[in-house]
Amino acid sequence: MIPKEPVEIVEVGPRDGLQNISQYVETDQKIELIGLLAQSGLKEIEIGGFVHPKAIPQFRDIAEVTKGLDNIKGVKFTALIPNLRGARNAIESGIKKMHFVFSVSKSHNLSNARRTPDQSLVELKEIMVLASSDPGLEISVDLATTFGCPFEIEVKRDDIMYYVNRVYDLGVRSMTLCDTAGYGNPRQVGEIFQSCLEHRPEVLFRAHFHDTRGLGLANALAAYQAGVRSFDSSIGGLGGCPFAPGATGNVATEDLVFMFDEMGIENGVNVRALFEVCRYLEKMIPDVPITSSLYKAGFPGDHKVCRTS
Amino acid sequence: MIPKEPVEIVEVGPRDGLQNISQYVETDQKIELIGLLAQSGLKEIEIGGFVHPKAIPQFRDIAEVTKGLDNIKGVKFTALIPNLRGARNAIESGIKKMHFVFSVSKSHNLSNARRTPDQSLVELKEIMVLASSDPGLEISVDLATTFGCPFEIEVKRDDIMYYVNRVYDLGVRSMTLCDTAGYGNPRQVGEIFQSCLEHRPEVLFRAHFHDTRGLGLANALAAYQAGVRSFDSSIGGLGGCPFAPGATGNVATEDLVFMFDEMGIENGVNVRALFEVCRYLEKMIPDVPITSSLYKAGFPGDHKVCRTS
Repeated sequence: MIPKEPVEIVEVGPRDGLQNISQYVETDQKIELIGLLAQSGLKEIEIGGFVHPKAIPQFRDIAEVTKGLDNIKGVKFTALIPNLRGARNAIESGIKKMHFVFSVSKSHNLSNARRTPDQSLVELKEIMVLASSDPGLEISVDLATTFGCPFEIEVKRDDIMYYVNRVYDLGVRSMTLCDTAGYGNPRQVGEIFQSCLEHRPEVLFRAHFHDTRGLGLANALAAYQAGVRSFDSSIGGLGGCPFAPGATGNVATEDLVFMFDEMGIENGVNVRALFEVCRYLEKMIPDVPITSSLYKAGFPGDHKVCRTS
Repeated sequence: MIPKEPVEIVEVGPRDGLQNISQYVETDQKIELIGLLAQSGLKEIEIGGFVHPKAIPQFRDIAEVTKGLDNIKGVKFTALIPNLRGARNAIESGIKKMHFVFSVSKSHNLSNARRTPDQSLVELKEIMVLASSDPGLEISVDLATTFGCPFEIEVKRDDIMYYVNRVYDLGVRSMTLCDTAGYGNPRQVGEIFQSCLEHRPEVLFRAHFHDTRGLGLANALAAYQAGVRSFDSSIGGLGGCPFAPGATGNVATEDLVFMFDEMGIENGVNVRALFEVCRYLEKMIPDVPITSSLYKAGFPGDHKVCRTS
């Protein structure tokens, strides 16, 4: 039996989606996009990253975007930080919740962040010290490549638990396990989340899936069955790996919300409002296809004739 | 815990896929396609339909296709039959297993087969009498629109059980529950299959999903967890509703096999051999996109760099 406990949907499209897009999106468009997302009922939105503008030029206006959202109340706006410098800038801009990301796979972290996972932990320690100055600040950690790495393929379960424990020891109580390359499968996803939830019940574990091989929703279902109640997703399915042309990206918010809606699982998001956001996206970034299945197919009943079994 | 019992994958692309394609595929190409599918390890393949050539011109050569497969041993070649006449023609051509299809939704069956479901049952009764003359003949029934109908949206659970029972009473012990329009969700799929399996343990229940709203694999997972061990799928994701442009069709065989492979569930199919079939499809029907996620993304490790979480 699948339970009916509510879930939290966290929008990461403005960060994980836009960071992969070559077209620079103007500041006011970013703010409008995030505003539309907030109107759909999403209560937490990752709006970008406090990263060096040479690393990801898309986020060079992140401070302005943050300020531009000041008048939207009741929504938590979060940002990615790759290092201590990013944390300082985020705090200065008024961000209250930050996501520090590193890969549990050494080769991926070296390629992506130019340091080993253990070096990332040293950085995290400094960030935790910085954040401790203000009790209103939250640090969450994204463990990238948890379900597989493009270089090492499989990531050892012991390595995952090792980093979960190390991050826990630094005082972090919110962690997102990310299927960065879309390698996860439902059995593995269920087992890993079950281990984590049993081992560290004080931690809020969130799931972040990509739909690269069509398993995004199946993995979300498996994570839900294992007890996960918080999920990242990206409007329109934006995001993913730009080096796999034609491949789908992050699990689309509208697909995930639709699945939970259909299963009678409360999530607080108006899926039809998300379609408005998709239409805005199509105007905003016309060269980027909306890959979500629901947006392409429409809602049940939209198409009346299907001569098939 | 997800079990590890093996599954049977049944290929329906040459029937459910090709019936939706406007391009006529030549007889020798159909035979080559089916031959390649057989080489991948698939043990049951639905090769087309014995239907009136005006209804589906694609299958006007079904008798020749059937004969052309005579020299392939160890694979069961099946065909769809919409009526008694189709059954007679199929038997005459040497087909040993036939799929009679009707919709549990009255309005869909009226639109698709121009008769009510109860009238379809009368036809089925006659087919069962015909088939009883040869103990080597198998009749299986596809219950279309089980998980939702484009006209009526939701199909009552009582109606599903009513038709399962009526079909059972006619002596049928193999039934496929079809998500014709891609409306199913994992909770509903799990519950309906569980009811059917508990209520009629003598019947082999098979699942037939479309990936229209991205839920194909999640639904397959839910069906597997409910005890289903036999699945239809279509090479390259061919099929689906031609009236929802851009929408994906049937669950792709390579996506389904990949999911089971990754979960350590034996299925007897060589997923890399399916990629060869996809490449053949691209040459055979160049205007029809291959929609399967795995074919677009490639296998884990094919793309080495993903700068993302």
